[in-house]
Amino acid sequence: MDLWTLSATQPTRELASRLTVSNGLIGIKDLAEIPQLQAVPMTDTVAYVNGFYDYEPIQYGEAQFGFPQRNQTMIPLPAPTQLQLWLDDVAVDLNQGQVIDQHYALDMRTGQFTHTLIWEATATGQQLKIKIDRLTSLHMAALMGQRLTVEALNFKIGKLRVVAGLHATATAKSTAFDPRLAHYDPHDILDHQEVSQPTPDIRGLSLNALHSDQQLSLFVHYDQPGQWVDDGNWTGEFAFEQGKVSLTKTVWFALGTTSLPEAATDGLKTSFEALAQVQTADLQQFWATSDIKISGDEASQLGIRFSQFGLLQALGGHQGSHGIAAKGLTGSGYNGHYFWDTEIYEAPFFYWNHPELARRLLLVRYQQLPHAKTYAQSLGLAGALFPWRTINGEESSAYFPASTAAIHIDADVAYLVIRYFQITHDAAFMRDYGLEILIETSRFYLDYGNFDAQKGFVLNTVTGPDEYTALVNNNAYTNYLVQFELRYLTDHYDQRTVGHFKVSNQEWARFKKAADEMYFETQGDLIAQDDSFLSKKRLDLSRIPRDQFPLLTHYHPLVLYRLQVLKQADLILAMVLLPEQFTDQQVQTNYDYYEPITTHDSSLSPAIYAIAAARLGKYAGAIDFFKRTINTDLENLQGNTADGLHLAAMGGSWITFAWGLMGLEIDDQHATLHPYLPTGWTQCAFKLQYRGTVYAITVTPADLTVTGAVGDEVTIDQASRTIQIQATKQF
Amino acid sequence: MDLWTLSATQPTRELASRLTVSNGLIGIKDLAEIPQLQAVPMTDTVAYVNGFYDYEPIQYGEAQFGFPQRNQTMIPLPAPTQLQLWLDDVAVDLNQGQVIDQHYALDMRTGQFTHTLIWEATATGQQLKIKIDRLTSLHMAALMGQRLTVEALNFKIGKLRVVAGLHATATAKSTAFDPRLAHYDPHDILDHQEVSQPTPDIRGLSLNALHSDQQLSLFVHYDQPGQWVDDGNWTGEFAFEQGKVSLTKTVWFALGTTSLPEAATDGLKTSFEALAQVQTADLQQFWATSDIKISGDEASQLGIRFSQFGLLQALGGHQGSHGIAAKGLTGSGYNGHYFWDTEIYEAPFFYWNHPELARRLLLVRYQQLPHAKTYAQSLGLAGALFPWRTINGEESSAYFPASTAAIHIDADVAYLVIRYFQITHDAAFMRDYGLEILIETSRFYLDYGNFDAQKGFVLNTVTGPDEYTALVNNNAYTNYLVQFELRYLTDHYDQRTVGHFKVSNQEWARFKKAADEMYFETQGDLIAQDDSFLSKKRLDLSRIPRDQFPLLTHYHPLVLYRLQVLKQADLILAMVLLPEQFTDQQVQTNYDYYEPITTHDSSLSPAIYAIAAARLGKYAGAIDFFKRTINTDLENLQGNTADGLHLAAMGGSWITFAWGLMGLEIDDQHATLHPYLPTGWTQCAFKLQYRGTVYAITVTPADLTVTGAVGDEVTIDQASRTIQIQATKQF
Repeated sequence: MDLWTLSATQPTRELASRLTVSNGLIGIKDLAEIPQLQAVPMTDTVAYVNGFYDYEPIQYGEAQFGFPQRNQTMIPLPAPTQLQLWLDDVAVDLNQGQVIDQHYALDMRTGQFTHTLIWEATATGQQLKIKIDRLTSLHMAALMGQRLTVEALNFKIGKLRVVAGLHATATAKSTAFDPRLAHYDPHDILDHQEVSQPTPDIRGLSLNALHSDQQLSLFVHYDQPGQWVDDGNWTGEFAFEQGKVSLTKTVWFALGTTSLPEAATDGLKTSFEALAQVQTADLQQFWATSDIKISGDEASQLGIRFSQFGLLQALGGHQGSHGIAAKGLTGSGYNGHYFWDTEIYEAPFFYWNHPELARRLLLVRYQQLPHAKTYAQSLGLAGALFPWRTINGEESSAYFPASTAAIHIDADVAYLVIRYFQITHDAAFMRDYGLEILIETSRFYLDYGNFDAQKGFVLNTVTGPDEYTALVNNNAYTNYLVQFELRYLTDHYDQRTVGHFKVSNQEWARFKKAADEMYFETQGDLIAQDDSFLSKKRLDLSRIPRDQFPLLTHYHPLVLYRLQVLKQADLILAMVLLPEQFTDQQVQTNYDYYEPITTHDSSLSPAIYAIAAARLGKYAGAIDFFKRTINTDLENLQGNTADGLHLAAMGGSWITFAWGLMGLEIDDQHATLHPYLPTGWTQCAFKLQYRGTVYAITVTPADLTVTGAVGDEVTIDQASRTIQIQATKQF
Repeated sequence: MDLWTLSATQPTRELASRLTVSNGLIGIKDLAEIPQLQAVPMTDTVAYVNGFYDYEPIQYGEAQFGFPQRNQTMIPLPAPTQLQLWLDDVAVDLNQGQVIDQHYALDMRTGQFTHTLIWEATATGQQLKIKIDRLTSLHMAALMGQRLTVEALNFKIGKLRVVAGLHATATAKSTAFDPRLAHYDPHDILDHQEVSQPTPDIRGLSLNALHSDQQLSLFVHYDQPGQWVDDGNWTGEFAFEQGKVSLTKTVWFALGTTSLPEAATDGLKTSFEALAQVQTADLQQFWATSDIKISGDEASQLGIRFSQFGLLQALGGHQGSHGIAAKGLTGSGYNGHYFWDTEIYEAPFFYWNHPELARRLLLVRYQQLPHAKTYAQSLGLAGALFPWRTINGEESSAYFPASTAAIHIDADVAYLVIRYFQITHDAAFMRDYGLEILIETSRFYLDYGNFDAQKGFVLNTVTGPDEYTALVNNNAYTNYLVQFELRYLTDHYDQRTVGHFKVSNQEWARFKKAADEMYFETQGDLIAQDDSFLSKKRLDLSRIPRDQFPLLTHYHPLVLYRLQVLKQADLILAMVLLPEQFTDQQVQTNYDYYEPITTHDSSLSPAIYAIAAARLGKYAGAIDFFKRTINTDLENLQGNTADGLHLAAMGGSWITFAWGLMGLEIDDQHATLHPYLPTGWTQCAFKLQYRGTVYAITVTPADLTVTGAVGDEVTIDQASRTIQIQATKQF
């Protein structure tokens, strides 16, 4: 079994999501490049450009003041991958022949998608082996390359005609837009495309998003002689020499311009072989500091790699300034919006393996800060409130009880600022960007909350992570994260350090006081999810039929909000993010209380319970949750992989492995690990980057070893199976 | 000053609402019958038929399970009152002449609207006195009559041409639909009207609502010879004989049919004089048992009459089975929906003065019961949940935190059942309708709530009357009203009596237990609006600029929900509805706590605070709130009288007078009064109907008298100014 490759023979909508190639900027999803060779139903044929969106007005039955007025939607474009072939003027289709072999693969070492099939002409028995290789370049993010290779298997002389392009086939147009996934019909803008010819062998296609007025240009190059056709297609004719024809198409996606960018000319003329070589080299580098090697469990090995590869594909390399959409660039689910998933679920992989990429994610938030200040102001509040869902930084949510009210988004961003800094000690980042985020979000909280005479600092009328509960007072997760932020800020800085943010002595004192007096409703070790949660009626999940899950598709919010039932980890997530603040007994008590009423209807849930279970030594449960998380899309466990991959679960896979099984924790001075090797795993090796050093850690049943350390940075206690890495490097 | 007539000389949109004539079934709003004589801007020209609505899909930015999918909208029809005149072939308009006098009046004794004007032709100096009288019959609810009288003032010989009808003028069409008020464009259906001619002198116009498929036919008759015109208009020519021309148009509004109803033929041919005579007689009867006579305060006298007359116009006589819309039939505000206003604000006037009309209101709810059961079921709950806003019984609200979550609607209906029964002892009603309402709503509450080990019976995740607070636990108003219902039911009936509703012993015991263990959050005499209200931050209303009210148009719900601020009376309303349950000290403590944070942004608020203030002897405040309530529409205090009258404030006027100033209270055995005579009032006389007897009560500074009593039913204590009426009659 090749544990670096996903492969399959049957095209499905789920497979199309899994085998999407993307690089953070562009995503190409197409299993049906030659639609004439596909039996219905067709799978999705679509391309995405991160940051290319249109607006649509949000409709409300009853609008209230301050509700967002327009939505952003990532525009689903027809994939520029479509082909139509003729062999000696006979259409290569299912009327004139049959497909006698078909194979799909995505190789995570080369970053290449490959689609191979053999077509046999009914009339002549001639067989063509058709191979399509595709990649989206990690090196030049705007570039997609696709190579068509056609081989004459059982004949020598023949003529192949190829038509390629956005409009290569009639069906391509109809499958690009799936109304189940997006309200946005891309044909509205495609009908207004403009064709240009910047050089004789490069053709441009410029689109204008109707309402956002954003521009996108696709520049196309073919490496063989051929002709441009009026409708934007290209056509070429080839004789089989040495029995083989090869045609490479490159496409450069230029956002915000109609002119051919300088870099594009060279990029477009790069051969597929050269593109592939660079791609492989880039991936070698990626895996060098992030591969996890598991011996003894092939499914987990493939699953964890698929998760890491998916995270890389969603974010890409060092270029660009876009966030990670909930589905990455693999589908139209959630309209291409970025959520808190990024900071809490996806960022940990990056800050522990590729901190420079985590920094990129933080810069995206920093760019959103002006919008976030405006948004807070529009609610009559100080500081900044980050949007619950967005592409361009504007709030794009139409249901505030489960969006704007989820003010923990600010503390989630702050959490990433702090963790990133603890791991990297990137002082320049903190000075130039991080502190401002911490100050403005703290300001927001101090204005949103208030000091109550009985309780202390309270944050009323909020929604926590659990979306089956809304508009409550003192959601514990929110309060813990806000307390962590305020305490970190006031413990590590003083009012003078942050003077340029116009923080008065009085404001600073209130930050401290709010952290000290943060309110939590408790009953002994049991911490209430919010002030009223414990007095709600407990829902007995065992009495609900399987087909009524996820509950949100069968119950009105008033039923769910009224009862003790969780969509996903809430308080337990706070315990996982801030493990040092809770005793094992507390984790145990709350795990026992909350787990039975958690539906895990959200893909964000199992990973978190896995980590808590691992801490408690409930390893069977932890492994079970771990497998659920890594298989979310490989086994279509949420039933909607067709709409795109669950990036939060991919991030969740990594934290389940690292925080859960390997017991990774962090504070200002140390990183510590308490590795656990699941039954069947004979060895496990992985890497972490901490304060600029890459540590390679190997875990066997008998032994823990760490390489990469300089001096006495690392202490290993084999008896208690604990590794401690001391933060000695200062920058 | 005529204290029975509203009159004015300047047409405004507000005046159009005030001078609308309606009878519970049809409403006609038109100050501009001859548009050619009106300077712009035109006022509304519209007709409503109670129960004639169309559906429109509700749009949600993010829909959740169980959200209503379609809205009902009362269809704003062009008023069939439009006219166009020619004098000797000269158009009677503002180009050929001028209006030198104009007067509008609505007489509450005759129920007639009168519009008088004098037009002078520029060329000839000829003067026409034009008078339009209009009424909607209380006797035959489907019938509208309008009489045009044109008098030649300073000439003898002339020819008058009249064109009349829905399409009489081009402008009529454009003003019938005001997009600020309703999304529904009636032209969609009017463009598909069908014209019929059931008899030579009666023409029919049939309309079909596009989505609800409801039918409405208008049958039209003119009492003078003339000709029908193809487009649905009518035209006639008259010579001035004795200097005067008179033309009466009658229109019969037939809901649900295209055929001329039998009663319509005679009705349509009734002369205007005969219609007016019957109308006056009906009103005489109405005022005979409900007029309030105030000496010494003309503004209050006129105001209270206008409120009572408005309530009558909204509900009409004994025919029909429609509810009272928030704006009655005077405007398109709130889409013609019925709310809880009916039971709590409007019904008291009827059950104390015209209990047979209160019964009609209850039958409307009884007809909605099947929908209410279905709705509860769709939420996964037992019993019945009445719709928050509706025309046909289906929930029509698009924002559940301020609608479906307001489950007090059930207890509000139950409150009316109980009060109606206490006043009338109408055992047949209780047996046939009332008990089923009490049982099904109690059932709903027992399923919605639960018994909490610490607190007792709790109703979590609800919204109370105050719409600046939503989705809280144990809203005190809700819990008091539900407790009242459950206690009344279980105290006055036993499980066997209600056996046919399949109430088990166990369910009955739970009804009792819930009443006994109903939870209220208190701090001494202070009762919390809900479990978390007291720990929220108090909003200092004095620091908010006047132009930011109503707050809902300037603040996001998260700001309002998070703070101690009320749109309207909430707990204080419970104290007003159930006065016997609270001590004066409790009312005082809670009044002092809640009044300063109540914005009265809702027109439902001042009346309630007036009543509480009166109980506490804060008479200056009570009078102030009383005046605010009776002048809500007379002085356009909410700024939106143009969209229709505030029926709840009209009901509020009466309860402010009766419950507040007159101190009227009720229990199973008595009605009691503690009248207070405001400064300047030299005498006040009014009537109440109690257990079938009409009592006439007269209050002077020195003396209280009651007539109508038989035997020793009535006890008057002049010293303490208390009247007690004993419930001796049994039925």
